Amino acid sequence: MRGMRDVASDQIEAASIRGARELTVDDVRDMALGASFLGSGGGGSPRAVLLQLEAAFAAGQRISLIDLAAVPDDALVAPCGWMGAPTVSDEKLPNGSEAARGLLRLEQVKHQRVYAVCPIEIGGSNGLSPLLLAAQRGLPVVDCDGMGRAFPESQMVIFNVHGCTANPAIVTDDKGNTFVFDAASNAEEERILRVMSIAMGGACHVIDYAGSGYQMKQHAVRGTVSLAISIGRALRLARRAGQDPFQALIDCLRNSSYYCYGGVLVDGKVVDLQRATTGGFAVGRCVLEAFESAERIVVEFQNENLIARRDDAVLASVPDILTFLDRETAEPVATEQLRYGQRLKLVGVSVPPILRSERALAVLGPRAFGIPEAYRPIESIQGWSHDRSLLHSPARA
Amino acid sequence: MRGMRDVASDQIEAASIRGARELTVDDVRDMALGASFLGSGGGGSPRAVLLQLEAAFAAGQRISLIDLAAVPDDALVAPCGWMGAPTVSDEKLPNGSEAARGLLRLEQVKHQRVYAVCPIEIGGSNGLSPLLLAAQRGLPVVDCDGMGRAFPESQMVIFNVHGCTANPAIVTDDKGNTFVFDAASNAEEERILRVMSIAMGGACHVIDYAGSGYQMKQHAVRGTVSLAISIGRALRLARRAGQDPFQALIDCLRNSSYYCYGGVLVDGKVVDLQRATTGGFAVGRCVLEAFESAERIVVEFQNENLIARRDDAVLASVPDILTFLDRETAEPVATEQLRYGQRLKLVGVSVPPILRSERALAVLGPRAFGIPEAYRPIESIQGWSHDRSLLHSPARA
Repeated sequence: MRGMRDVASDQIEAASIRGARELTVDDVRDMALGASFLGSGGGGSPRAVLLQLEAAFAAGQRISLIDLAAVPDDALVAPCGWMGAPTVSDEKLPNGSEAARGLLRLEQVKHQRVYAVCPIEIGGSNGLSPLLLAAQRGLPVVDCDGMGRAFPESQMVIFNVHGCTANPAIVTDDKGNTFVFDAASNAEEERILRVMSIAMGGACHVIDYAGSGYQMKQHAVRGTVSLAISIGRALRLARRAGQDPFQALIDCLRNSSYYCYGGVLVDGKVVDLQRATTGGFAVGRCVLEAFESAERIVVEFQNENLIARRDDAVLASVPDILTFLDRETAEPVATEQLRYGQRLKLVGVSVPPILRSERALAVLGPRAFGIPEAYRPIESIQGWSHDRSLLHSPARA
Repeated sequence: MRGMRDVASDQIEAASIRGARELTVDDVRDMALGASFLGSGGGGSPRAVLLQLEAAFAAGQRISLIDLAAVPDDALVAPCGWMGAPTVSDEKLPNGSEAARGLLRLEQVKHQRVYAVCPIEIGGSNGLSPLLLAAQRGLPVVDCDGMGRAFPESQMVIFNVHGCTANPAIVTDDKGNTFVFDAASNAEEERILRVMSIAMGGACHVIDYAGSGYQMKQHAVRGTVSLAISIGRALRLARRAGQDPFQALIDCLRNSSYYCYGGVLVDGKVVDLQRATTGGFAVGRCVLEAFESAERIVVEFQNENLIARRDDAVLASVPDILTFLDRETAEPVATEQLRYGQRLKLVGVSVPPILRSERALAVLGPRAFGIPEAYRPIESIQGWSHDRSLLHSPARA
């Protein structure tokens, strides 16, 4: 196993992997924006990790993005991310060594060097934080993640849906505590790590569901890092050109492989907001009153936005993506950033079929959150088709 | 490293260690009694583990007790015990594999076979449970422990007093969860494991402060397993002979190397009891009204009895031992077994000098429990001397 001193030679290796693409600082800024959108309101604010990444670029560190196909079948890939309530991690900064310490411990436990890292979820801070680890260690980032969005609980991951084990979960915190956890089940992992994340101050770094390149190719949600970059770039370019960023966002999604149905569900103002940091989550509901119809849309969240309802009718629900964005700038507004009086658009987007299978819905569909309504694909509810602009939902007309 | 299949050959080895003494089922029953006394009200009820040990003997398993001097300097010794509130562990039975799973994991992490086990504390269930592990694995038990009594918190151990690390702490539970914990400090270990013990249902098995034979010889409290057996035997023989078991207990202690000052502090009835399972502990106070003087003695406890006061005067406090015993049978009554109306004697005993040093008192003296009074040795407070019978405290006359 190689240590931190081999960073320089690792970087040369990472850049020389077939199809590797070196990310620019603009890519990373775009990704912060795109991952915040894909996070469905969760994943944590990317502000702090973006500053750290900009500092890493300024210090000459580089980050390579590689396709999943370029990962050897027997290589070890480590999905990384933070666990906790975003309301906490927004204020409690990491010390910067949590992820690197966890990765070294994983290598000790697995007796294998980690080949590459990827986000456990492509949402907000958790989409970006593996990039910082990649820069620190000179490892490539694989263009995939474990959720295709962000979910609040650690077992709500495609690897669990497909029967992979979370073990060993490597947990680190800012104080220097390190855990190697072999859980009795993936549900036990979530249950106990949630309590630990609270004991660790409301947030801890977790590396779990580490697997071989073969396993990742079988199960991971592909292309989500580059999709996040594309979304961010589309928003940035539209803003710069004075065009409608929402149109640019929807067009970008329609041209993606899997997130092709999307649209604005409501355009309105926050007229009621309840949010509590409880059980290690940011839990609550946000009521948006539409400008045109004065109808009220209620969105329930648990770190991430889970379901949007108009009266008793479901507009969209997990696993489909529901994200609030500023109605002028299309800046994603995370659940912990919601404030009374904000003027927002609520955008809904379909998730890849891999997250909509019966097995997947059992783990991350409405029932997994105690929501009584059965899942219906957002495009069915909204009557969206793939070949028309979806800037305004037909169901809302 | 050798696995569970080598039990038979391990047993032959254990029995052949110089000075090894094979324990009988009577020794183990005596030890249950003696460890309950030394536990100062804590350590958990030994009832369940005693039944398991009797079953192990009936199945032909054997347990060797060896002196610390017989352990090679480079051998690995594993202190074992349960963490949690005794009020919980009294009702929530273990599945029986927790300790053995933890020991195997320790061997994997340390890349070294465990040579012998010992109790982390010589109190109640925790005094006995390493014997069960020893029987299961065919390993010897070393005649020592880490506290010389029982204390409620994991950092209140002589190894911590002397600067040894708790790492790696191996934590297992009845559901099959396994943790390897490298804590940022021994205080952090306690803080986070306490929360985990609650998440694990109120009790979990911990192997920590594992060290070399050399380290154990430097730091451990010696001879406490055989002392517990002696105390139990003294009580048993006195009861059988119709003699005063309290006299037998005090005589036995006076003849021990280190626990030589002891006596009855009060003989009375429980007239008030407050006990809550809170923060992972059994916390409360018990008021005993003396039969003779009708004076009220207040004992505060946190799993273990911490301090006894008559009005504002301290009768004895941690680290000295304070144990309630049934006034007829001298059966120790643990804090979780206290009931209104019980007729009890409160016995106080001096602890070995190793637990009374300035460094030790900082970790396990009154201040460590938030008790304002400074520590005074029980024999100073009570005016006890070594050469007279201490069945009734002169200070109480």
